[in-house]
Amino acid sequence: MEQIPMVFWLIPIASVCALFMAWFFFRSMMKADEGTPRMIEIAGYIRHGAMAYLKQQYKVVLIVFVILAIIFAIMAYGFNAQNPWVPFAFLTGGFFSGLAGFFGMKTATYASARTANAARHSLDHGLKIAFRSGAVMGLVVVGLGLLDIAVWFLVLNHFYNGDSSSLIIVTTTMLTFGMGASTQALFARVGGGIYTKAADVGADLVGKVEADIPEDDPRNPATIADNVGDNVGDVAGMGADLYESYCGSILSTAALGATAFAASAGDMQMRAVIAPMLIAAVGVFLSLLGIFMVRTKEGATMKDLLRALGLGTNTAAVLIALATFAILYLLQIENWLGVSFSVISGLLAGVIIGQSTEYYTSQTYKPTKSISEASKTGAATVIIKGIGTGMISTCIPVLTISVAIMLSYLCANGFDMSMSAQSIQTGLYGIGIAAVGMLSTLGITLATDAYGPIADNAGGNAEMSNLGEEVRERTDSLDALGNTTAATGKGFAIGSAALTALALLASYIEEIKIAMHRVGTMMTNVAGDAIDASNATIPDFMNYFQVNLMNPKVLVGAFVGAMAAFLFCGLTMGAVGRAAAKMVEEVRRQFREIKGILEGTGTPDYGRCVEISTLSAQQEMIIPSILAIIIPIIVGVVLGVAGVLGLLVGGLAAGFTLAVFMANAGGSWDNAKKYVEEGNFGGKGSACHKATIVGDTVGDPFKDTSGPSLNILIKLMSMVSIVMAGLTVAMS
Amino acid sequence: MEQIPMVFWLIPIASVCALFMAWFFFRSMMKADEGTPRMIEIAGYIRHGAMAYLKQQYKVVLIVFVILAIIFAIMAYGFNAQNPWVPFAFLTGGFFSGLAGFFGMKTATYASARTANAARHSLDHGLKIAFRSGAVMGLVVVGLGLLDIAVWFLVLNHFYNGDSSSLIIVTTTMLTFGMGASTQALFARVGGGIYTKAADVGADLVGKVEADIPEDDPRNPATIADNVGDNVGDVAGMGADLYESYCGSILSTAALGATAFAASAGDMQMRAVIAPMLIAAVGVFLSLLGIFMVRTKEGATMKDLLRALGLGTNTAAVLIALATFAILYLLQIENWLGVSFSVISGLLAGVIIGQSTEYYTSQTYKPTKSISEASKTGAATVIIKGIGTGMISTCIPVLTISVAIMLSYLCANGFDMSMSAQSIQTGLYGIGIAAVGMLSTLGITLATDAYGPIADNAGGNAEMSNLGEEVRERTDSLDALGNTTAATGKGFAIGSAALTALALLASYIEEIKIAMHRVGTMMTNVAGDAIDASNATIPDFMNYFQVNLMNPKVLVGAFVGAMAAFLFCGLTMGAVGRAAAKMVEEVRRQFREIKGILEGTGTPDYGRCVEISTLSAQQEMIIPSILAIIIPIIVGVVLGVAGVLGLLVGGLAAGFTLAVFMANAGGSWDNAKKYVEEGNFGGKGSACHKATIVGDTVGDPFKDTSGPSLNILIKLMSMVSIVMAGLTVAMS
Repeated sequence: MEQIPMVFWLIPIASVCALFMAWFFFRSMMKADEGTPRMIEIAGYIRHGAMAYLKQQYKVVLIVFVILAIIFAIMAYGFNAQNPWVPFAFLTGGFFSGLAGFFGMKTATYASARTANAARHSLDHGLKIAFRSGAVMGLVVVGLGLLDIAVWFLVLNHFYNGDSSSLIIVTTTMLTFGMGASTQALFARVGGGIYTKAADVGADLVGKVEADIPEDDPRNPATIADNVGDNVGDVAGMGADLYESYCGSILSTAALGATAFAASAGDMQMRAVIAPMLIAAVGVFLSLLGIFMVRTKEGATMKDLLRALGLGTNTAAVLIALATFAILYLLQIENWLGVSFSVISGLLAGVIIGQSTEYYTSQTYKPTKSISEASKTGAATVIIKGIGTGMISTCIPVLTISVAIMLSYLCANGFDMSMSAQSIQTGLYGIGIAAVGMLSTLGITLATDAYGPIADNAGGNAEMSNLGEEVRERTDSLDALGNTTAATGKGFAIGSAALTALALLASYIEEIKIAMHRVGTMMTNVAGDAIDASNATIPDFMNYFQVNLMNPKVLVGAFVGAMAAFLFCGLTMGAVGRAAAKMVEEVRRQFREIKGILEGTGTPDYGRCVEISTLSAQQEMIIPSILAIIIPIIVGVVLGVAGVLGLLVGGLAAGFTLAVFMANAGGSWDNAKKYVEEGNFGGKGSACHKATIVGDTVGDPFKDTSGPSLNILIKLMSMVSIVMAGLTVAMS
Repeated sequence: MEQIPMVFWLIPIASVCALFMAWFFFRSMMKADEGTPRMIEIAGYIRHGAMAYLKQQYKVVLIVFVILAIIFAIMAYGFNAQNPWVPFAFLTGGFFSGLAGFFGMKTATYASARTANAARHSLDHGLKIAFRSGAVMGLVVVGLGLLDIAVWFLVLNHFYNGDSSSLIIVTTTMLTFGMGASTQALFARVGGGIYTKAADVGADLVGKVEADIPEDDPRNPATIADNVGDNVGDVAGMGADLYESYCGSILSTAALGATAFAASAGDMQMRAVIAPMLIAAVGVFLSLLGIFMVRTKEGATMKDLLRALGLGTNTAAVLIALATFAILYLLQIENWLGVSFSVISGLLAGVIIGQSTEYYTSQTYKPTKSISEASKTGAATVIIKGIGTGMISTCIPVLTISVAIMLSYLCANGFDMSMSAQSIQTGLYGIGIAAVGMLSTLGITLATDAYGPIADNAGGNAEMSNLGEEVRERTDSLDALGNTTAATGKGFAIGSAALTALALLASYIEEIKIAMHRVGTMMTNVAGDAIDASNATIPDFMNYFQVNLMNPKVLVGAFVGAMAAFLFCGLTMGAVGRAAAKMVEEVRRQFREIKGILEGTGTPDYGRCVEISTLSAQQEMIIPSILAIIIPIIVGVVLGVAGVLGLLVGGLAAGFTLAVFMANAGGSWDNAKKYVEEGNFGGKGSACHKATIVGDTVGDPFKDTSGPSLNILIKLMSMVSIVMAGLTVAMS
């Protein structure tokens, strides 16, 4: 049995710390006063709706998990086409992801009224409650993620012992627990995304546009569903997405490390495997430090608030950068300095993508202002300008990721472009660990993400409970801050998804080799000699499967991959359209049939709207979800390994670009509307305002449904390919 | 000197026939009466504006051509990094493309009033004049294309004689004359696309929306510019685009044939080289036959008109399919039956993509109807639905192209998936010749494309000249038919661009080998032995440059390629937005300052609007154009051959999908508006109508600027890479 170094225990310790602190923040939030009876009532509606949705979703997910687990079990025990641990790993991955979503959302729904109530006292109180409640989500995600990783690593190491190849089997087996996380994330992101935007678009179209009542007005029957949507889409969906990236990046880097250093002397291989886990573990402590640093004082401007959050996240980021050098040096990783710079390049890429997202979506900069200005010639030019700007905004993120890929590859292998077997392996390890670097401080970055919808809901609660002007001003500043952090959070989620997907792509090759080894299929190396697949280097592999750009299978795979991204987006856009139309009908019906709603004397049937969103989301998420799972399987069976790799690269390149485009276009339309509302180009109620509302409504599914769902697609397609590697090998 | 078979002479004969018939159709059109003085006056304005634009554009293009020719000359004579014929070939390619645009547009601008006048007599008269004038464009394009090909082939064969490698040099040198066509097409498509939509959007926004006057109303100052735009964008732009595809597909297939059959016995190599040219030549005669078959009778319904056009194009397509078997059999091409099926798969793919485009964009089918229906909840849902539907519509074209790629590859090499050197080469030849198949009847398919704007202009002329209700009804049916053919024509243009780009991609490899051979750089083969680059097989090449999907250069190239497509689209969308805004200002100014315009007593300053469109288009096309040329050069220098191939594949997969999305979304918004105008959902003037107008306006740059410009981008990036192969080799 390979000796697990003592330092490994830091990982479960970090996990337990994260979970304990999450519990601590949750408890202290719960102790705060929830406010007036009206506030408690409204929060109750939302909590009830959110939990009802989650329950319904978990039912659907449970069915899918049972089916998939049976398939994996049959593959593993019936056909020997999979490792026997896979069904169990798969289930724990999904279970922990679901648990994280449950805790995160529960906290968020308890926190919103308390944030509004705290804002009655001071801005700092409000910020602290909202942000620390967001931190619960962040800490639960990293805590459960690391726990799952640590436990499986200990268990599997116990069973597989012996030579260095056992560690490869352990890490690639663990990788498949990411499939559970992926599946859970798929439903959380797609279902949650459809839910939230069906409610939002429906509420806006009838409420704001037709009935001319403000956002979050309690007279609007869809307003509770809209607030529920913020929780299920932006808290639970985002959490599941990043849980998947977090685990995926750590696990694939571990697997790449096991292969890259399989032939190294001593326990170098083991150290390379636990290095990404350790960076993540140290990141937990630094995230905690950052969370405690976030505070502000009364009368804080938007800039002060941003600085308060920025101080926390940036301190954590700078410290993890420094800590990485120490960790890798102490672990005595070969070329530790270079690998450290790989981590830095991932961290930096995350920051740059976040900055570029802010530039393209914030109304303080030219791009969004010019979209507002386009409203002078109507809604059509707002859309044209927004789409144009969104497309141009893909440039910086793509170049950043490109540079990060090159740098992390080259730093890790000592700037070796020889494409020798070893240089590729260590280079790929560098790309993986760059993704880990980007995600290492997820504890705090996810806190800033989850903070957004809590502040948004607090604002809704304040509006619906008729709290004073001063309170609403405070919740408005908290909310505005949330919009900015949500935009940068989205950029960050996309960037990390791309790097993670790339690391998974590389791991796919390892899975295929292991699958071939398991069934005894031989491979030929570059020289043409028959070899055991598990001994094949990447050049051998590429040559054997002809994974080059003149192979029509690769080309067709790339075409299908690019198309899959568009198709998936189109389906989710269509889903939001249909679900929103149902909501519009329902709201119109209530306005018509329930007397006195608009006068404030009748009570709208909030529950019916919540139900409609829930049902629509559940129905509409099925086709895109099945598609995302089935496309890589079909391509694998029809076009083999070369086709799958083409699919993944085509899907990744097109999907990443499309995701950035959609997120940024959506974000800038949102803020272009806000810019007009701030009094520019005629302000609220003007023709320009109406034109920007059209942009904002179009942007809703862009930025909150289709765009973020692409993150899942690009990771999930790799994950499915990995899990189905056995099938691909058996069929070819 | 390789013996050129007698049958080769069919190619110049076909070319001369096409040009003669074009002249004949032009003459007979010119003999027709142009109508009332008012009609002649209006046609004069448009002709004048169109020619002024073309003159201005050719000035800019001339400068670019001089600069590029000098660069190529320096590369060829100064650094020996290019074949000495390249500068000349480049210039003739551009010159002939420009000439085709000039003739086509001249004809179109003379034909519109005559079509309107003929429609005063009967529908058949109108159709015949419009269609045969469109045929002038089609025939000039294929005639000049084949002429250029035939002359260069004869000239170069005279200078390079001897072994089989000379034919490789001849064909790859000729390929670079496609660079001239590409450059010309870039400016025609991008400049023309910006021009036409700036005028169209500007005219609509102020005319239809603000002043509430109908389309083509002479009181609208931008109406002449709008009509000019149809000519410069849809006639000249489309013509240049397909001229490039036509020449590019024939030339790259010839080059692929020269390589694939270099080692074959007898003159097999020569026969493989002239096979694509012969198929194209026979296609000319069959196109002529089809053109003569297009006629209809008075009282024809839309269905009859569609059938009339369909009869012509389908007859030509079926006959060329049959003829292909005969040609390849008589040429005794190795595996002639299989290669014939490659051609058929290209032809079929063209038909299927056209049908799918019609399904997704015509208001007779569900997708477009449902976009109309979305107008019940406003403009935002029209946009959401249109984008969703457009994205979903990418599925069939991508799968069709994918199947066509696989089939044409496998048919040509006898279903050999061994990826042996020879099987790849013959497979790639199959892909190239599939593109030739798709484009072989371009004479008539382009005629149906160019017919559209002529009919559109005829309608405009009838409206502005106050011709009777009956006449306008006839021109309306002609115009409606034009909209359908334009949509299918766009699908066809995109599909052929994708296959052509793929063939060019394969040719790029040959160019690199020749460039290495020229400067004496050695390569290693798969076994590791040093060999002369010109003897390298594709597996050698792929191995030497590590063009596999685990090379970070390839991955980064693919990312940048996908981003380039989005960036290019974003820039052209932005350009239309800016140019349209200028137009809006000008029209508003004229309404304000020129007394009596809206009452019909004052004359608008049409010329000023034409000028604005011309200037905006010329300014705005510079940045996207330079980008399209420079990106592959930079990638080549920074990332080398592997990066360029990644770039081309990423750009092709994402660009093709994006182009289909944009063209279909735009087309369906256009027809969703028409569906409402036909009296559905409240008809003209209703709130639903206004909502669909927003969709139509957004769709304008989608379908007529950004979407079609992507065709150019994906071909041009390959072409630039080919021409700059010498530079890439010198730098690496």
